[in-house]
Formats: sequence, structure tokens, C-alpha cells
Amino acid sequence: MRKIIIGVMGPGNGAIASDLKNAYKLGQLIAERGWVLLTGGRKSGVMDAATQGAKAANGLTIGILPDEGEGSISDGVDIAIFTGMGSARNNINVLSSDAVIACGIGSGTASEIALALKANKSVILLNDDLTSQEFFRQLAPDRVLLAATSEEAIAIASKLV
Amino acid sequence: MRKIIIGVMGPGNGAIASDLKNAYKLGQLIAERGWVLLTGGRKSGVMDAATQGAKAANGLTIGILPDEGEGSISDGVDIAIFTGMGSARNNINVLSSDAVIACGIGSGTASEIALALKANKSVILLNDDLTSQEFFRQLAPDRVLLAATSEEAIAIASKLV
Amino acid sequence: MRKIIIGVMGPGNGAIASDLKNAYKLGQLIAERGWVLLTGGRKSGVMDAATQGAKAANGLTIGILPDEGEGSISDGVDIAIFTGMGSARNNINVLSSDAVIACGIGSGTASEIALALKANKSVILLNDDLTSQEFFRQLAPDRVLLAATSEEAIAIASKLV
Amino acid sequence: MRKIIIGVMGPGNGAIASDLKNAYKLGQLIAERGWVLLTGGRKSGVMDAATQGAKAANGLTIGILPDEGEGSISDGVDIAIFTGMGSARNNINVLSSDAVIACGIGSGTASEIALALKANKSVILLNDDLTSQEFFRQLAPDRVLLAATSEEAIAIASKLV
Repeated sequence: MRKIIIGVMGPGNGAIASDLKNAYKLGQLIAERGWVLLTGGRKSGVMDAATQGAKAANGLTIGILPDEGEGSISDGVDIAIFTGMGSARNNINVLSSDAVIACGIGSGTASEIALALKANKSVILLNDDLTSQEFFRQLAPDRVLLAATSEEAIAIASKLV
Repeated sequence: MRKIIIGVMGPGNGAIASDLKNAYKLGQLIAERGWVLLTGGRKSGVMDAATQGAKAANGLTIGILPDEGEGSISDGVDIAIFTGMGSARNNINVLSSDAVIACGIGSGTASEIALALKANKSVILLNDDLTSQEFFRQLAPDRVLLAATSEEAIAIASKLV
Repeated sequence: MRKIIIGVMGPGNGAIASDLKNAYKLGQLIAERGWVLLTGGRKSGVMDAATQGAKAANGLTIGILPDEGEGSISDGVDIAIFTGMGSARNNINVLSSDAVIACGIGSGTASEIALALKANKSVILLNDDLTSQEFFRQLAPDRVLLAATSEEAIAIASKLV
Repeated sequence: MRKIIIGVMGPGNGAIASDLKNAYKLGQLIAERGWVLLTGGRKSGVMDAATQGAKAANGLTIGILPDEGEGSISDGVDIAIFTGMGSARNNINVLSSDAVIACGIGSGTASEIALALKANKSVILLNDDLTSQEFFRQLAPDRVLLAATSEEAIAIASKLV
């Protein structure tokens, strides 16, 4: 029985306070549902906050790491997948997620949203940035879903998985 | 003496008429400058049009292909690189380009713009879509450069390489 | 607290009866130790047998899949990572494993052994094929470790992790 | 009209004198035939020697680089493809080559031979190491072809392309 994997994508250093708060909550809610959290695995920003949130709720966490190094892995990652392929691993993040939630926005996150849409997946956007919402909805009107809160994002995800 | 490589990214099936016209012209201008054209290599949309333009001007063309198949390669590709890694090859496209020109917009192209910005590269946008311009300029104000014509895109590229 | 991941690599269709038996036992022993099993995830040969063995002992199993398809995944895979990158995923398999056990031999398995050695990792060989043993020991005398049984392979792995 | 690409794979630092001599000659012969040389692109061992040989005969050379860095590229590389994906790029090397010649042996080279065989390609072995010859012939008796000299390797390649 395969586990349901929810990917939470979001900025590292560029994350703002609301992104971190949302990410932590997403991690908690994902774990409480019995789902597995997947992130980019780094000890930074949304990846780290979501991972910490999931661990606080005794969840299982996967980190798909861009590089081979040990130093920059989130402490909360249970299962570290070392891709050694830099940002090309972003495609693995989205292909492996039963639902993709983008929490905040940045270049890496934008690439993940776009790669998810390219792979015909839906993406849940959790941020206040109207331009990014408009941009991605234009690319795939039916598959870009807006959430105002972490709870709403999880409610949408539960219909996708 | 390494050759200068200009990457032209753009939609396949989703390309509109102006994208195709611009892409063909970009290919020509790139070849006329003695640069090498790099695209995603498929026999479709901007990739194919740019490649045909470059060949019309006796240029050298590289196609970085997503899959292993033979059937869908642009006829004008001189050097086919088979990555066998789907859209993850988009990261190779941008890492290998001395200048990246995005001609038109779509999910795959958006991922390439975002991956280029993530890799601290500049990207030249050649399209009329104000939302995409605004979105990407927000991500990296100094590294998203707007061009109104193929000639302008090449003029900007010549300063980057 | 990161989980310890043991990678079991081995042939799919080309696996022989002793490979399958060894793989199943490896999966069991890995799970009994509380380690996580990582394989190439396909519903075939050593990958499938090791996964079934781990599930029989209530272990946690990861499958790093070469393609995006659903149809060919081992039923016992708990966590499916979809790389969409074909055999290039073999490098991820070995980079992500705290210990690599090669159970049987074939082209894909040989690539995994070689990639592990290239990444300065040790590899435990569990097979009767003297030529492969000699070949790989020649490449890295100190990092190619021979095991005659699944139990011996696990005993060696326990010193590596 | 797509160009014919011949991949020459071989050790970097671990290359022995005869490998370097053979690689240089291979590069020359490939260029003289009007073929394109593809290597791993690094300024080291067989990759560098083959590239230098091809340039001495005015050939066109491609380097498929493992990392993003500039420092370690062979001076003779005309077209540098930056994969940013470490040894996983070895799969691209073999998928992109119309014929694969392994000149010498080492861990990276062994992974390339194995990945080529996995992709149902033929591989031409140019080395004196009987164990490696026996090992790979065992994996794929009909697709591992032995050459005693660079000239012989090229003669075999000319039948494959």
C-alpha cells in the first residue's frame, strides 16, 4: 500500500515570515493526516519549516536533496535522497508528489510550479502574491488552485490524492 | 576556443505565430553572429523554428532532447544530445547557454526561465505577455531583460556573452 | 534523526533463483534491523524480491523509479520516488544508500556498482560470479567487499553504517 | 542532417600512458572521418587526450560536463554541455553517442560501459585488461566488441554508425 506523498515547495533563504508559519502548519497537517511530507530537504526556509512541522506531529519526512553534501540537510528529514543533480532535482520533487503545494514564491519554487504544470499535475498556491497567481493561472487555468490558508491548501490536497 | 552558445527556449505545440516568427529570426541572427544555437531539440514550436532559422543561415544547432526517441527531433538539429530525463533536461538547457532567450511562454519555458534565474543567470524575455514579464522581474529585477524584437534580444545577448 | 538506508541493487528480469532468494532475505534482515530498504522500485527481479522481504518483516521500503509510469512498481514499495530519468537514476540509488549491496549481476547492477565506487563508496557483492568479483576488486580493492550469504552481507553493512 | 557522434569514454586521473596515446589517436581518426567527438569534457586523462587529438585534426568536440564549474574543462572542447548532475551525466554520454568506445578502464568508465549495455547499445573496448573484457562480454556477448588498436576501434565504429 503506497503512502500518499504531499510535496511542499517553497523558498529557502528568501522565505518570508508568513511562508515559514504556513509551511510549519502544512507539515503538521500533512503528518496528522497520515501522509508523507516531501520537500527539497535543505535546512532553510520553507523546506525546513515544513519538515519541522511534520516532525512535531510525528510525521514521516523525505528530503530530495540537490547536492551530495551532508551539512545543509534539515534536521527533521527522516529519509534523505541524494540526487547530486542540483536544481534538476526539482522535477523529481513534483513527479513524486501526489499533490504539490507551493508555499511562497522564489525562482526555485517557480520552477517547481512550472515543472508540475508541464507534467500535467495540479498545483496549490499558498501565497499572497497576485502576480504569481495570475501568471500561473494563465498557464493552466484549471490546474492552478488557490489557497488562503494552510488548512485550505490541505483541504484541496485531500481532493487530489 | 569554446564556442558561444545561445539558448532559445520556447513553447512546443503552444507556440503562437509571433513566437514562431521571432524564433526563426533568432535562429538566423544567432547563426549569422557565428554563435551556436541550443534548443530543446524537438520538432515542434519555437525549438523547431529557431533551429530552422539557424540552418537557413548555415549555423550550428544543438538539441538537448528530453527523451530517447528519434521520431520527434527537429530536422535541423546537427548535434542531438539525448538526456533521457524528460523535463529535468531543462536545467541543462539553461546551464549550457551563455545567454538564455525565452521566446514566448508556456509551462516548460517558465520552468527554464525560473531555473536560469535560480542559477544566477540572466534571461532575455521576448514576448508580449505583461504578466509573465512582471512575474519574472519580481523574482530577479536585474536579471530579467525585456526585448521587443528578435534583433533587440540579440543585441542584449551580445552584451552578456 | 535520519533513518539508515540500505540499497539493494540487482537485476530485474535477468535475476536467477539464488538472487531472488538472497534478495528476499536481505529485505527481511534490513527491516528487522530497523533500517530502510532502497531499491530501483520495479516489480521485477531483485528489486521486487527485496521489497517483498522487507514488507514481510514490516519494514519501510523506498523505490527510486526510472520512469514516470505507474504500472511497473513493486507492490511492496511504500515510498515511490519518480525520477523520470531512466537509468541515470542509478546514481541516485547509490548516493542515497548508507550501504550498497549488489545482489546478483547484470548491466544495470554493474552500473550501480561502478557509480558507487566512483562516488568513493563501498559496495558489498553478493553473488557467485568470480569474474565480476575480480573485475570490481581491481577497480577499488579496499571498497569491494564480498559476502557469501545475505546474513554476511548484512553483517558487513552494519559496520559501514 | 544530423552529425554522427562518437563517444570516447575513459579514465581521468587514472589513465595510463597507452590509454592517453590511444585516446589521442581516436580523437584524430574521429575528426578525420568527419565525425563529432563526445567525451566527459574534463581536462584530464582520456577525455582531454581524445579532445586534443580531435582538435589537432580540426574536428568538432563536445564535452558533457558533470559539474557547473569552468575550471576543469578540457581546452579543446568546442561545445560544453553543463549538466550539473555529476556522474549521472554518464548516462547522457552513452545515450548521445552513435558509437561508444571505452578507452582504458576505471570506475566511471565501467559505469558508462554498463549504462550503454543497459540501453541496448554496443560498446567497443580498447584496453589490455582481460578481466574487464571477460566481465562485460559475459553481460552482453554480442554487443561488447574488442579492439586492439585505435584504428581497429574506428573500423568497428564505422560499421555501427
